[in-house]
Amino acid sequence: MRFRLETRYPDYDTKGHVNNAVFLTYFEMARSRAWLEVVEGDADFPFILAEATVTYVSEAKIGEELEIEITTSEVRTKAWVWEYVIRTTPGAREVARGKTVQVMYDYGEGKTIAIPADVKEKLARV
Amino acid sequence: MRFRLETRYPDYDTKGHVNNAVFLTYFEMARSRAWLEVVEGDADFPFILAEATVTYVSEAKIGEELEIEITTSEVRTKAWVWEYVIRTTPGAREVARGKTVQVMYDYGEGKTIAIPADVKEKLARV
Amino acid sequence: MRFRLETRYPDYDTKGHVNNAVFLTYFEMARSRAWLEVVEGDADFPFILAEATVTYVSEAKIGEELEIEITTSEVRTKAWVWEYVIRTTPGAREVARGKTVQVMYDYGEGKTIAIPADVKEKLARV
Amino acid sequence: MRFRLETRYPDYDTKGHVNNAVFLTYFEMARSRAWLEVVEGDADFPFILAEATVTYVSEAKIGEELEIEITTSEVRTKAWVWEYVIRTTPGAREVARGKTVQVMYDYGEGKTIAIPADVKEKLARV
Repeated sequence: MRFRLETRYPDYDTKGHVNNAVFLTYFEMARSRAWLEVVEGDADFPFILAEATVTYVSEAKIGEELEIEITTSEVRTKAWVWEYVIRTTPGAREVARGKTVQVMYDYGEGKTIAIPADVKEKLARV
Repeated sequence: MRFRLETRYPDYDTKGHVNNAVFLTYFEMARSRAWLEVVEGDADFPFILAEATVTYVSEAKIGEELEIEITTSEVRTKAWVWEYVIRTTPGAREVARGKTVQVMYDYGEGKTIAIPADVKEKLARV
Repeated sequence: MRFRLETRYPDYDTKGHVNNAVFLTYFEMARSRAWLEVVEGDADFPFILAEATVTYVSEAKIGEELEIEITTSEVRTKAWVWEYVIRTTPGAREVARGKTVQVMYDYGEGKTIAIPADVKEKLARV
Repeated sequence: MRFRLETRYPDYDTKGHVNNAVFLTYFEMARSRAWLEVVEGDADFPFILAEATVTYVSEAKIGEELEIEITTSEVRTKAWVWEYVIRTTPGAREVARGKTVQVMYDYGEGKTIAIPADVKEKLARV
């Protein structure tokens, strides 16, 4: 899935670049949209985040339009990996890439669970 | 009550000044501390915000230390007013001032309520 | 001008409501868009903020779509007033309203200046 | 280096836990303090971030006090690695850990440079 990122003025730091921590929020926006549009139409996400990595490739400057691509790169029994690439548009200069590991979680029971078969199948479409 | 504000790098905008919206977060930090230290030792605040005003007096530049003063300026039956002044330290140049109106609220019942007498008395000490 | 607000997960507080300070960021998003689309196509805004007020009308809950309306309500020699209303969509329940006072500013000279005639005319169209 | 983290109400998400992206801001606060106190007393940091990783170990709940420890774990010719552990205090339950890779950068020339010998020595003390 690929879509345009709507940036905000407070995303930029004193040098006019997107602050390093904001990329995790961009990843979160992509996850949210992927989950709602492809997996389940429910905003109460049944997973927790186990790990996040960001590689900073070039500065995203104020005024530049950005797009993000999210892809499922691995699906295990209880966990799956989403990978992200953020690029400028037009131009497609790579700005950052990264990945996050999600673990299926039952908030009622307070424990990790196996990914249901239908969710696995839908995750493969992201 | 007066105390030092711990600023963060993402508080600053592309010009190296504290972003306008962050002052409401600084006011919130002062409210939280005032409530916990003077009124009740409980972080589940039983009030809602009805109004907030910020007057921007001078720019808070990166590297400047800031302090905030919070004062209760009015206590009504269900609502009270907190006023704030943010200054540089040392130097005491005024950076911003403002006020917020809080209304006592029963989250269980979902309605505004009268401020209890002991809370009124404690609010007067802020 | 009226447009949809793209909310983000970190905008919501522990109660699932948009945090009070975030409304100033929503106002900023409306200002930015109004300036770029109606007034000048330049992101280096030649004005400073003198005052901001938010009135909290009802809670914006997670999952609700929001729209914002920005209107120029007053244009003086050096300053002008923008007013904002944020509503749910669909339903149009009012969530918050507010206003900000902007002052035309010459960053090179470091002083306030009169609003140019063409800018005044364009501001009237917001 | 180890010090207490001052959390803010907007750091917490709808579940009352510190939002995943905020940990990169906590790491940034530790970097800033380490640089200013141990390396150089200058807030204009001469390095860029190349990579950041966060491992989420347990939830940081609202009301819990947190501390962060930052350690230099590797110093190369142009880059160095900082590692972070965030724990509750008291109790020392681990909440998150992570690392960031910094590259020495000359903003005037717009290029990466070798870490000066005196900076290398100071980095080893963090």
